[in-house]
Amino acid sequence: MTSGSPPAGLTERQDELEAALRALVADRPLPLYRMMGYHMGWVETTGEERSAPTRLRVHGSLVLMACRALGGDYSDALPHACAIEYMYNHILIHDDIRDGNSERDGRASVWWSWGPAQAINTGDGMHALARLALFEMRSNGKPAESISNALRALDEANLETCEGQYRDITLQERLDVGVDEYLSMSESQTGALLACALRLGALAAGETGDAAAKGLNEFGRKLGAAIRVADDCDVFWPDGVRDDARQGRLAAKKKTLPVAYVIESGSPTDRRVVGEIYMKRVIDPAAADTLIAVLDAAGSKDFSTGTIKRLVDEALSALETAGLPDAAIDELSAAARFLATPDGLAAGGVMHGGEA
Amino acid sequence: MTSGSPPAGLTERQDELEAALRALVADRPLPLYRMMGYHMGWVETTGEERSAPTRLRVHGSLVLMACRALGGDYSDALPHACAIEYMYNHILIHDDIRDGNSERDGRASVWWSWGPAQAINTGDGMHALARLALFEMRSNGKPAESISNALRALDEANLETCEGQYRDITLQERLDVGVDEYLSMSESQTGALLACALRLGALAAGETGDAAAKGLNEFGRKLGAAIRVADDCDVFWPDGVRDDARQGRLAAKKKTLPVAYVIESGSPTDRRVVGEIYMKRVIDPAAADTLIAVLDAAGSKDFSTGTIKRLVDEALSALETAGLPDAAIDELSAAARFLATPDGLAAGGVMHGGEA
Repeated sequence: MTSGSPPAGLTERQDELEAALRALVADRPLPLYRMMGYHMGWVETTGEERSAPTRLRVHGSLVLMACRALGGDYSDALPHACAIEYMYNHILIHDDIRDGNSERDGRASVWWSWGPAQAINTGDGMHALARLALFEMRSNGKPAESISNALRALDEANLETCEGQYRDITLQERLDVGVDEYLSMSESQTGALLACALRLGALAAGETGDAAAKGLNEFGRKLGAAIRVADDCDVFWPDGVRDDARQGRLAAKKKTLPVAYVIESGSPTDRRVVGEIYMKRVIDPAAADTLIAVLDAAGSKDFSTGTIKRLVDEALSALETAGLPDAAIDELSAAARFLATPDGLAAGGVMHGGEA
Repeated sequence: MTSGSPPAGLTERQDELEAALRALVADRPLPLYRMMGYHMGWVETTGEERSAPTRLRVHGSLVLMACRALGGDYSDALPHACAIEYMYNHILIHDDIRDGNSERDGRASVWWSWGPAQAINTGDGMHALARLALFEMRSNGKPAESISNALRALDEANLETCEGQYRDITLQERLDVGVDEYLSMSESQTGALLACALRLGALAAGETGDAAAKGLNEFGRKLGAAIRVADDCDVFWPDGVRDDARQGRLAAKKKTLPVAYVIESGSPTDRRVVGEIYMKRVIDPAAADTLIAVLDAAGSKDFSTGTIKRLVDEALSALETAGLPDAAIDELSAAARFLATPDGLAAGGVMHGGEA
């Protein structure tokens, strides 16, 4: 797997995308939109402009890349890119409340700054805004059919994401979570929206062919699951130290692939130790060390790393079936390889649900 | 104002509407949809069927009435009616978390039954479902233009509702809330979605004329504000006793028109007493009695009752400008008069934000 800086395909047109996202709230003075701007990384809680760079907009970039891959013009896909970015960020705002995350991208989360009532509502408003972005297409002279197809793709992906969230929350209460069940949940919770990004890019390019649709969909879903597992591994086996954020995620006892693997395939003793740790109210640092030692001994790290590789390979194989030009395949492949690495997680953070 | 049972226009086709709403989740086995069905009043928490009647679907009924008023066939408006009902109910699910309401329609609220994490997600899922309802129109052979217009109306109304919610939450922290500010907030928070219901009905009938659109919009907004104030009065001056639910709403210190009136127009003494009560952490029953005595002496009840009457009159005047047949005007007028009464609140409860 490659690592380091994001490949060019992912970073191209980020300025235009950011400008288009900001334009959608620029004329809305109500402080409701300032909370949205805060979450997006544009302003401080006071409304003051921020100079720090925002996160890589992975979903939006994938829209633009898929559009170009199918011969479209990136400017036709900007409304779609904005729509899915607002959709994704609405999910993050609600996730932070749901998971009790006090931080997001190293800053206080929206609910932590303004309370859960405002945060629920800010997320709902951003959900509405996501769709209104697509109506911008009318000024580009696109037919209603095109908007309607894009909206439907967005709504279906959103509903599947909610189904994934439901399953994720439910898994937290159970110990007998299997590897396949976990990966299937991850494909829905993280992969459905990535697949939708590619679908929207294809729609923006005017492509409705079955081969491209199927190939890109499978690519997005497998990539989502790969990123999810990479994120799991980052909690247990970070490149650097296990910082407060990672310890917090361990403490929250979310189910992850490394743990699902031991529960499914570990020795009776390993399973008993893991079970006892997950029965605790919270997993403190000492229990976390014990847990990681068990995972290491049971081969969970190798299994998880192997799973990431397998899922990325499956994503790339699916991509081959989409009938894209070689240059586009190379570009999307490079993006996929990067996103499922620690550097990819740090730059883009397309995770949700498992994120602290 | 009339009262008693709902007028025929509001109750007609409720069975068809209910069946259409249920059909949208019937083939979805994930328990996520059972939580939705519980909220809608169809099943118990266990999933067992409920025999008790569900609430009057006011938003959905208004869609069907507006469609018929403009010469359309009600069956063309069923997808629109389903869409707005799911949109409205998604707001209620989130409102209950936001306001900490343990009950909804005399049963445990969704977050009270399944926790805030599942409830946030269930509301988000219902939000997606609301839009997918409109895609059902494709099977009726409606043009994409028609779906796109309906979706845009829904999204714009939803965003304005969020703006109203934002303002409502903000008002809770302030004492200097003026009457006009309160009514303007209510038009957004409660009225925008009612206005949207009428707009969707008009779109379903194929009507895009300006007169009908403007008249129905104003009708819906004023009606929303009237219902909101009727609901406020019901808390302070219920027909029967001030039960736990009403006491709970008083305790939550939401701003209401009767209080805004005293703050704006009461004597210095009245204002001081009201201010002291609202400075308390919660308003206990004794403080509530004192508050109501001050409101009574200051003429808040008369002012509020007069405001309801004025808003309903304004709604009816707006309706006159919409160019509808007399029979349709009569039917919508009867609905408006009924909805802004205690019986209307009890039957339909189109309130949100202020509801306990």
